[in-house]
Amino acid sequence: MQFEKTNRTKLNRHPDRGSFDKETIYKIIDEVFYCHVSFLQDNKPFVIPTIHARMDDNIILHGAKASRMLKHISAGNEVCIAITIMDGLVLARSVFHHSMNYRSVVLFGSGEEVTDANIKFNTFHAITNHIMPGRWDDARRPNKKEMDATAVVSIKIDEASAKIRTGPPVDNAEDYDLPVWAGVLPIIPMFSEPVHDPDQNEDILLPDYIKKLLK
Amino acid sequence: MQFEKTNRTKLNRHPDRGSFDKETIYKIIDEVFYCHVSFLQDNKPFVIPTIHARMDDNIILHGAKASRMLKHISAGNEVCIAITIMDGLVLARSVFHHSMNYRSVVLFGSGEEVTDANIKFNTFHAITNHIMPGRWDDARRPNKKEMDATAVVSIKIDEASAKIRTGPPVDNAEDYDLPVWAGVLPIIPMFSEPVHDPDQNEDILLPDYIKKLLK
Repeated sequence: MQFEKTNRTKLNRHPDRGSFDKETIYKIIDEVFYCHVSFLQDNKPFVIPTIHARMDDNIILHGAKASRMLKHISAGNEVCIAITIMDGLVLARSVFHHSMNYRSVVLFGSGEEVTDANIKFNTFHAITNHIMPGRWDDARRPNKKEMDATAVVSIKIDEASAKIRTGPPVDNAEDYDLPVWAGVLPIIPMFSEPVHDPDQNEDILLPDYIKKLLK
Repeated sequence: MQFEKTNRTKLNRHPDRGSFDKETIYKIIDEVFYCHVSFLQDNKPFVIPTIHARMDDNIILHGAKASRMLKHISAGNEVCIAITIMDGLVLARSVFHHSMNYRSVVLFGSGEEVTDANIKFNTFHAITNHIMPGRWDDARRPNKKEMDATAVVSIKIDEASAKIRTGPPVDNAEDYDLPVWAGVLPIIPMFSEPVHDPDQNEDILLPDYIKKLLK
């Protein structure tokens, strides 16, 4: 399945780096747990980072009932969302050809508040699972009061494209003989040693689903 | 020095996590090499990730002459920029109190194109140094043709605030005895083993300023 190429999502520069393939786009959306949401406030641009999850063709965002962003989305206004993974610094022989390896998605859509209690409960499950598979079955699940204090919106992905750069630097032909180290410095976001809550008894051992993330 | 607290930059939720301190804000801006820039396109919100550097009270962005975003900024339009560092997953006993440790900045400003050749050259230096100190003195510097092919804008930071969360989870009093591992899983973006350009002779050794980044 492909998203339609629109004026806003087509790539004017490096169209070879673009993709409208749904599977490619959804894989990037699912790999990171936060995104940047851009919306209008008093007709001016505003952008904030927030946790997300994807459920089918929708982006799920949540937060406090009073959140300006969530109210704005609940009112049916369109947003633009960026999901960005930086994979490496591309070190060319010339400053000009330095670059990044990355996988990024920009998408557009408008949303609505999720009010149905069962669906809302499922969105919490989706968000928790997105960030840490296994956690939902371990932590105490939200009660009615907590559910009511939280607003959830579901944004239908209307337009989307991915932009991907991979591989070594590309220098001008005449620069290949310069004695400048060239290559890629890969970036890998790592979890480091978990820090146990000082208010918790040490008898409670680190669960396997967290250990699994520590390679 | 403090930035003025404005309607757009004040924190409605968790005001205790907010900071308007210039030093705090600039430290976050300088620690990461990319940001998300939000701007209007046909009166709709748009957001894209891009490399940045800070020079005094200005954010420097660069790209191809034809870039829609850079043209929009050069025309004097205001943008909103988010700089986000995710420091850890905060794992509470209850799903509701899960959170992130983070340091983020949201700033507003409008800019102009940098056209003076000397200043423009200095912005390339600043960007290169921001991403990898030492690289500017090693790689081939931009020539006139490359300078001319690149647009640079300088955005004066008019309003800015930081939002910071640190420390362990905070659960409801009655949940502290639940047998659920609680704590923080720190996130550290790491560089992994550099990948040498396959088109470069292996005689060229990895420079010290890159080795230094690999701890």
